[in-house]
Amino acid sequence: VIEPPLRIAVDAMGGDRAPAHVVEGCLLAAADGDVRLLLVGREAEVERELDRLAAGKGSILSRIELVPAEEVVAMDEPAVTPLRRKPDSSIRVCVELVKEGRARALVSAGNTGAAMAAVKVVLGTVPGVDRPALAAVLPNAGGRTVLLDVGANVDTRPSHLREFAVMGHSYAREVLGTATPRLGLLSIGEEESKGSEFSREVFRVLQQTGLEFVGNVEGSDIFSGRVDVVVCDGFVGNAVLKSAEALADLATRMLQEEIDATLRSRLGYLLARPAIDRFTERTDYAEYGAAPLLGVPAGCFVAHGRSNPKAICSAIRRATEFVRARVHEKIRDRVAELHDEEQRVTARAAGGAGSEPETLAH
Amino acid sequence: VIEPPLRIAVDAMGGDRAPAHVVEGCLLAAADGDVRLLLVGREAEVERELDRLAAGKGSILSRIELVPAEEVVAMDEPAVTPLRRKPDSSIRVCVELVKEGRARALVSAGNTGAAMAAVKVVLGTVPGVDRPALAAVLPNAGGRTVLLDVGANVDTRPSHLREFAVMGHSYAREVLGTATPRLGLLSIGEEESKGSEFSREVFRVLQQTGLEFVGNVEGSDIFSGRVDVVVCDGFVGNAVLKSAEALADLATRMLQEEIDATLRSRLGYLLARPAIDRFTERTDYAEYGAAPLLGVPAGCFVAHGRSNPKAICSAIRRATEFVRARVHEKIRDRVAELHDEEQRVTARAAGGAGSEPETLAH
Repeated sequence: VIEPPLRIAVDAMGGDRAPAHVVEGCLLAAADGDVRLLLVGREAEVERELDRLAAGKGSILSRIELVPAEEVVAMDEPAVTPLRRKPDSSIRVCVELVKEGRARALVSAGNTGAAMAAVKVVLGTVPGVDRPALAAVLPNAGGRTVLLDVGANVDTRPSHLREFAVMGHSYAREVLGTATPRLGLLSIGEEESKGSEFSREVFRVLQQTGLEFVGNVEGSDIFSGRVDVVVCDGFVGNAVLKSAEALADLATRMLQEEIDATLRSRLGYLLARPAIDRFTERTDYAEYGAAPLLGVPAGCFVAHGRSNPKAICSAIRRATEFVRARVHEKIRDRVAELHDEEQRVTARAAGGAGSEPETLAH
Repeated sequence: VIEPPLRIAVDAMGGDRAPAHVVEGCLLAAADGDVRLLLVGREAEVERELDRLAAGKGSILSRIELVPAEEVVAMDEPAVTPLRRKPDSSIRVCVELVKEGRARALVSAGNTGAAMAAVKVVLGTVPGVDRPALAAVLPNAGGRTVLLDVGANVDTRPSHLREFAVMGHSYAREVLGTATPRLGLLSIGEEESKGSEFSREVFRVLQQTGLEFVGNVEGSDIFSGRVDVVVCDGFVGNAVLKSAEALADLATRMLQEEIDATLRSRLGYLLARPAIDRFTERTDYAEYGAAPLLGVPAGCFVAHGRSNPKAICSAIRRATEFVRARVHEKIRDRVAELHDEEQRVTARAAGGAGSEPETLAH
């Protein structure tokens, strides 16, 4: 069976250099004949970029369809904007295309909060999932770590982190190809007794999941390769992700400053440049594409506002893999299994509790 | 008035390469005639290192006194070990030297939890401070950021974060020399309305402090230079600090791997090496010395387990500056001022509340 080409909706107006960088990223991604892109945004602006960038790329252009949307949600507007004030915004139209079945996934480098809100409200969640979570894919010593939640939720309950664990596990296995993902709970100190009241409760919940739960891990293990999936509340994950991104930027800038300071080091840089470029590539967020919003019934990828064309292209590829691997169906099935298991455990416990008073009365 | 040399107790047995690296760091620090070091640990082992490292440094040696302590708290032992099982451990003896007034500060690169527990229990806290906090000093684009708490406390209340703010502010001003430290609250999103229930409550508390509170900041601002002090719960701060350290390590290792991969880039590295070394120095934790435990009535510095001699020397220098600047007295005074102010506000509010019903009744 040959599957028909996948349709992905792309928010042409999202990102610091939109629509130019988004259009360029779409042209890169559409070089793959397996995908069709619905490019959503202000018609005249997007067309101008397509004309400028797609000269002589007729066959690629035929895989891109322009879908007009006249409004744009700015980076600093409230998350509810696409739901309330701007129903004809590019991000809202992307979400509607998915809802209508015209696209199977969407990619946006625009306002993250607005994209998440529109997706959650318009598409709803996967059955059994209470809280969708934003996952970051980060480099580690031997591969990649999935960290979630990095900002979709605050004030979570322990049962939400169990959902995050199941979703992160499915993503690592189905999209990143990690055969048996090892799961860690972000905490302070590794022993079971360490952590906050909340994290100790989550520990007990994660022990019941049947996933390969290695226990508490510390912030350092996000980058060590000791685990493949790290779960935490969105407040903590957001602080970790944003500080890590800023540190990587600061380090790159400092290195460049020092190299630029003398002729000798500039010469050395010319020689070492391929190595330094490979290094930059290994640590560049653009390589990792975008953050998937897990737990919603479609592939929804939120890319960094600064996304360059390569990052947009990566995000589209991840979205394609996500849909082909049926990740959200797998999340749904696994969550349902967990619920069944819990009910059995609860029923057994209730049966035990029912007979216990009698036993004690003897 | 010429002040007498300061006495600092140093845990000779703490750290991955103790006592060798600690002794070497002490010899570096004691080159400054203004300081006297009490080197605490197993007599024979420490003496052997002193003999090996201090040949021909008689004048420096005269500033170092060996204080015997036969027990050692290992990195993985529980925090209560120096209090319960090992009263003659090097860290416990350091703390006792401070309590007896024989030293004004202490430095340890050993078990952080054990050091904090011994200090808090034996020395108590600064009057008015409920929860001492561990502060990390991190590089930012233009200088340094103080991040606290990075692990002394979990399950904090909003009033604890007000204490952290006051303590971080005093440290930035008195030790790092920041004239008017700007304070940020680590959160998710910058608007006042953003964050968790807890962080929104902290926001309101910090507005009342009279410090230059710029509001919510995100993880990226720890490294941006937008603020000088960032406060958060110890669970979050610990995750941020440990992940940032691990990322910096991973990036350095990846850069080295890429450079080692070809002859051309190795040649380039030889030329660019002074620049790369200056870069490493700027990002090296050893430059920043150790994390001060703020809110206790002495200078207590916890250095990284991997501390090299330079890091130990930096930690001793920071401890000296801490004592000379009378940081803990300033923290005590500022906390007392805040309490007075609060009582006035509460009194006014109570007075207002008493008369308000009458006004409303007219």
